Amino acid sequence: MDRSTQRILVVNPNSNEAVTRGIDAALAPLRFSDGPQIECTTLAEGPFGIESQADYEGVALPLARLVATDNRASAFVIACYSDPGLHVCREATDRPVLGIAECGVLTALSRGERFGVIAILDGSIRRHLRALRQATLTGRLAGERALGMSVAETVSGEATLDRMTAVGAALRDEDGADVVVMGCAGMAAHRTRLQERLGIPVIDPTQAAVTMALGAVALAA
Amino acid sequence: MDRSTQRILVVNPNSNEAVTRGIDAALAPLRFSDGPQIECTTLAEGPFGIESQADYEGVALPLARLVATDNRASAFVIACYSDPGLHVCREATDRPVLGIAECGVLTALSRGERFGVIAILDGSIRRHLRALRQATLTGRLAGERALGMSVAETVSGEATLDRMTAVGAALRDEDGADVVVMGCAGMAAHRTRLQERLGIPVIDPTQAAVTMALGAVALAA
Amino acid sequence: MDRSTQRILVVNPNSNEAVTRGIDAALAPLRFSDGPQIECTTLAEGPFGIESQADYEGVALPLARLVATDNRASAFVIACYSDPGLHVCREATDRPVLGIAECGVLTALSRGERFGVIAILDGSIRRHLRALRQATLTGRLAGERALGMSVAETVSGEATLDRMTAVGAALRDEDGADVVVMGCAGMAAHRTRLQERLGIPVIDPTQAAVTMALGAVALAA
Amino acid sequence: MDRSTQRILVVNPNSNEAVTRGIDAALAPLRFSDGPQIECTTLAEGPFGIESQADYEGVALPLARLVATDNRASAFVIACYSDPGLHVCREATDRPVLGIAECGVLTALSRGERFGVIAILDGSIRRHLRALRQATLTGRLAGERALGMSVAETVSGEATLDRMTAVGAALRDEDGADVVVMGCAGMAAHRTRLQERLGIPVIDPTQAAVTMALGAVALAA
Amino acid sequence: MDRSTQRILVVNPNSNEAVTRGIDAALAPLRFSDGPQIECTTLAEGPFGIESQADYEGVALPLARLVATDNRASAFVIACYSDPGLHVCREATDRPVLGIAECGVLTALSRGERFGVIAILDGSIRRHLRALRQATLTGRLAGERALGMSVAETVSGEATLDRMTAVGAALRDEDGADVVVMGCAGMAAHRTRLQERLGIPVIDPTQAAVTMALGAVALAA
Amino acid sequence: MDRSTQRILVVNPNSNEAVTRGIDAALAPLRFSDGPQIECTTLAEGPFGIESQADYEGVALPLARLVATDNRASAFVIACYSDPGLHVCREATDRPVLGIAECGVLTALSRGERFGVIAILDGSIRRHLRALRQATLTGRLAGERALGMSVAETVSGEATLDRMTAVGAALRDEDGADVVVMGCAGMAAHRTRLQERLGIPVIDPTQAAVTMALGAVALAA
Repeated sequence: MDRSTQRILVVNPNSNEAVTRGIDAALAPLRFSDGPQIECTTLAEGPFGIESQADYEGVALPLARLVATDNRASAFVIACYSDPGLHVCREATDRPVLGIAECGVLTALSRGERFGVIAILDGSIRRHLRALRQATLTGRLAGERALGMSVAETVSGEATLDRMTAVGAALRDEDGADVVVMGCAGMAAHRTRLQERLGIPVIDPTQAAVTMALGAVALAA
Repeated sequence: MDRSTQRILVVNPNSNEAVTRGIDAALAPLRFSDGPQIECTTLAEGPFGIESQADYEGVALPLARLVATDNRASAFVIACYSDPGLHVCREATDRPVLGIAECGVLTALSRGERFGVIAILDGSIRRHLRALRQATLTGRLAGERALGMSVAETVSGEATLDRMTAVGAALRDEDGADVVVMGCAGMAAHRTRLQERLGIPVIDPTQAAVTMALGAVALAA
Repeated sequence: MDRSTQRILVVNPNSNEAVTRGIDAALAPLRFSDGPQIECTTLAEGPFGIESQADYEGVALPLARLVATDNRASAFVIACYSDPGLHVCREATDRPVLGIAECGVLTALSRGERFGVIAILDGSIRRHLRALRQATLTGRLAGERALGMSVAETVSGEATLDRMTAVGAALRDEDGADVVVMGCAGMAAHRTRLQERLGIPVIDPTQAAVTMALGAVALAA
Repeated sequence: MDRSTQRILVVNPNSNEAVTRGIDAALAPLRFSDGPQIECTTLAEGPFGIESQADYEGVALPLARLVATDNRASAFVIACYSDPGLHVCREATDRPVLGIAECGVLTALSRGERFGVIAILDGSIRRHLRALRQATLTGRLAGERALGMSVAETVSGEATLDRMTAVGAALRDEDGADVVVMGCAGMAAHRTRLQERLGIPVIDPTQAAVTMALGAVALAA
Repeated sequence: MDRSTQRILVVNPNSNEAVTRGIDAALAPLRFSDGPQIECTTLAEGPFGIESQADYEGVALPLARLVATDNRASAFVIACYSDPGLHVCREATDRPVLGIAECGVLTALSRGERFGVIAILDGSIRRHLRALRQATLTGRLAGERALGMSVAETVSGEATLDRMTAVGAALRDEDGADVVVMGCAGMAAHRTRLQERLGIPVIDPTQAAVTMALGAVALAA
Repeated sequence: MDRSTQRILVVNPNSNEAVTRGIDAALAPLRFSDGPQIECTTLAEGPFGIESQADYEGVALPLARLVATDNRASAFVIACYSDPGLHVCREATDRPVLGIAECGVLTALSRGERFGVIAILDGSIRRHLRALRQATLTGRLAGERALGMSVAETVSGEATLDRMTAVGAALRDEDGADVVVMGCAGMAAHRTRLQERLGIPVIDPTQAAVTMALGAVALAA
């Protein structure tokens, strides 16, 4: 069966095109010649980065409008680790809408006993924990720790990988995680090397969510 | 990138070849020309159906041996809704091993607020609940209800679909489920029509697990 | 000590002035001659009623702007039972921001063992439950049941009180609640009579939140 | 409306009059000229301090008798952080009976994500935790830490404030609390300065309970 | 080894000697010629039945005094299904003090997946649930249902057994219990026949607690 | 009543006869002249030690066969701290089957507020935690810590006791345990001295399970 006319729309809710390009590159392994198209787009109305609660709230309705007015996609992925607008987007369409934080954690739960999360900023951890509590997914949370770097800094650079390794090792050794979720859409380029260094599975949440979207789309009648 | 030399091995732990063939057919939409091979096999040592705790225990080590000695697969899926042998298989290999009950529930959690499960036999519900409690995934369980039919009866037949519809409607209307998981590897043929009838997402757990395996395999370096 | 120069600002996030007037009237018993001023305002940008997730999302940033730019209030109360914008408002000011759903439930927990909630619309219950799960306050939830009426209908009318009594009795007798929370800012006029009819405490959430705001303001140095 | 004929009776279950006077002083900001009277009394039968389980049990029935025979109060507050006799007092009267531990924690939950508790004695922590578990309010508990001082020592003195600051800082920085509850009726004099030093809300539980009693009384028909 | 100089003291906190005699008779199977003595006593200060919270509170300190001044027993069992005085008795002695509710439930958890409780009075259920929540033992509670009879009525009579059977069957069939705890010290005479009728294990809590006391005593050095 | 024709069969699922002899010796205090026989046996098919998930799975069906074909025992105890085969053995017989991990923890819950577990190997902790989560018994878990010794090493030797004391003290002082469970069937010889050194109750799980079996057997009609 040829699924290549189907489309998964991955929306980066911040307006940083470099992040969108990084996401796009990270999804290459999930593109198959007769599989669904995976298209990445930048939310025009988004802030340059989603670092505050106001940033998070501000993109909810623009995302919902995008979802409601798009008539080409079979499924949507919101590519920000806070899952902004997830519930309002689901209200706006009957098509599947997946959040990368939710899918990242769900995927981690299929690969280990207890998961750790690498956040970028300390200030995001409370927001992430609220989402986990709401989803009743804290039962196997080992811990969440922040890099203490800006989003921009994390996209590239060996120093970033070193810092991620140190934080990941703390999650593994002090908190007892046996699987780690990268708590940001912009970390994917580091996933393979981080996994090699830590010796336990490392989940990129956008890849996790697009995988689940791929299934939802391919399996639709 | 061509992933077509990679292989996902889906193991039906019961020895009922008809079930294996049904699983194989249900996975067609997840086969892409340049994607991983999805191969279904029947566990030679399996009982004809896994209905008792003894059936469940009896396939654990045969599954682990299969996993340990296979040198062609990049990931494994155990295609029985009790996830027999899941932990011992994970001990036997570093490659991902996914259980369909676990993946079915995790996928449901990405599609709705509260999930219901359609079991075949009443006697299986306690076993399923033990697994959910162990995974700390009961927080959004709406309920589990049994068809009260044999595994053989559920594979085909309009009467089965009618019975599944009635049970699914009870999960939706009385228990508050807004997504339903089919609690058996052999129900996939009914998924699309059941979903149409119920008007809420219906998850086939084998399809869910193979989707997650597809991601794990495709994303490996 | 004279606290009467202090001000509590109660914001009705919908633009229905009749609801604001009802809230204002319900707060009369909490106004003391030398106590904080309790001022009720209508959010200009609000929809006529907050019934959908989009309505809920749409008022978050307007509420945050109101909170951030107001320089007269010592504390804020968001008077909608979905607590829209609660977290972004807290980010926008160091002054206390209280949500009526949160305070209604917390107050109920001081008055009974298990609480029931009377919602207006079935469709709001999932949103309310998400908030309760996030706050880890489901442990003593007896149940939530909807009136199946519009917000407008609930503000007045004997038929409304009868319907609330029936739903409250079901929460008490079938679900085991010994305290009931009115799940809407616009039901306050019915509280006393409903409590008399049910014979168990009935909590108006706006009154509960303003009480807690009164304490926070009066106790500030 | 003039509420000044109504009375809230705050009972200090220990027989230390200095503690009662401290409580009385701490409640001054909640007294309004036309608001309910707030009267503090010392339980004649109480021990000098409530430090053991026997102290705690010993005051339950005397409190219940006081509640049952008082015919002037509209609500009662039990001013000991172990909430002795709470359930038997509720059985003894239909008027609201509030415990300061319960109300202190509930109020903290309206002001922060995760709360810490400053106990006086290590030996009280287990008793406090039993009450929190019973109330299903442990989900957002950051931790409880003891001063390791006697009740008498904590009532006054700069050394006490320094010790409270150190313990509060540990709750904030090591345990992740963003709101702190003072786990004793006799610490109120330190609240404002402790809050300034810690930079996060500090809740005096007696003030919290009397606030909630004020609402319950003022709102009674 | 001869343990017959050791003594387990079972205290009936109510002053109904007929209940004490019934308890004594029910413990006969746990008396071995060279095993610990099992002695039953009636608390002189106890009320005729423990039906209210005041009854429950009133026996705590008398029980603690009994425990503290007894110098012959190696372990104590408090034989009332509300476990009155459990924590204060544990403070009063280093010897084991066991509560029958706690031990009844713990024993049930070793015999089934989900337990039901047969209470005598509706009014006791909240008190029992508080204890279960405090002990974090609600995870596998199927339900608790009351006979709606007086304690006196339950001690004997075929009508009682019939009523217990009906309630037990509801716990089994409607609530999903596969083991039942008798929620009163005075029901032991019915245990065997009730178990036969229900076809699932029925736990008498006094027998369960004395069994655990027997182990604690016999195993002491 | 003479119960001495009744038999409790304690099965050591590993084939190490020295462990079986140690278990047998530890049960001497539970043997009464007119009480049930307590017989210890070694599972012929067992591995020399149960250290891996494969070891654990491998004994399940042999245990179930032993249980199903034995016609002399009134109750069975599976004497390995992972409770292998517990559910399949329960399916194989209507007689009580008790697991020592389950009974050790349940007994600890009757003796303290929060329990700690001393494991032998780090690798076993995840397996133990899965069982605790499944049983919903993690609510009062203080922590589990491993000795980092082989099973053989732990059976005897002063060095073992010293190591157990250090680990037990960490559970007590750092994790807050006030009762400790020995997480292995082969540690019983150290129980009394470990308890003396730690000053809190120490539970040997085999003794705990046989005590509960003793009750179940003695109380059968």
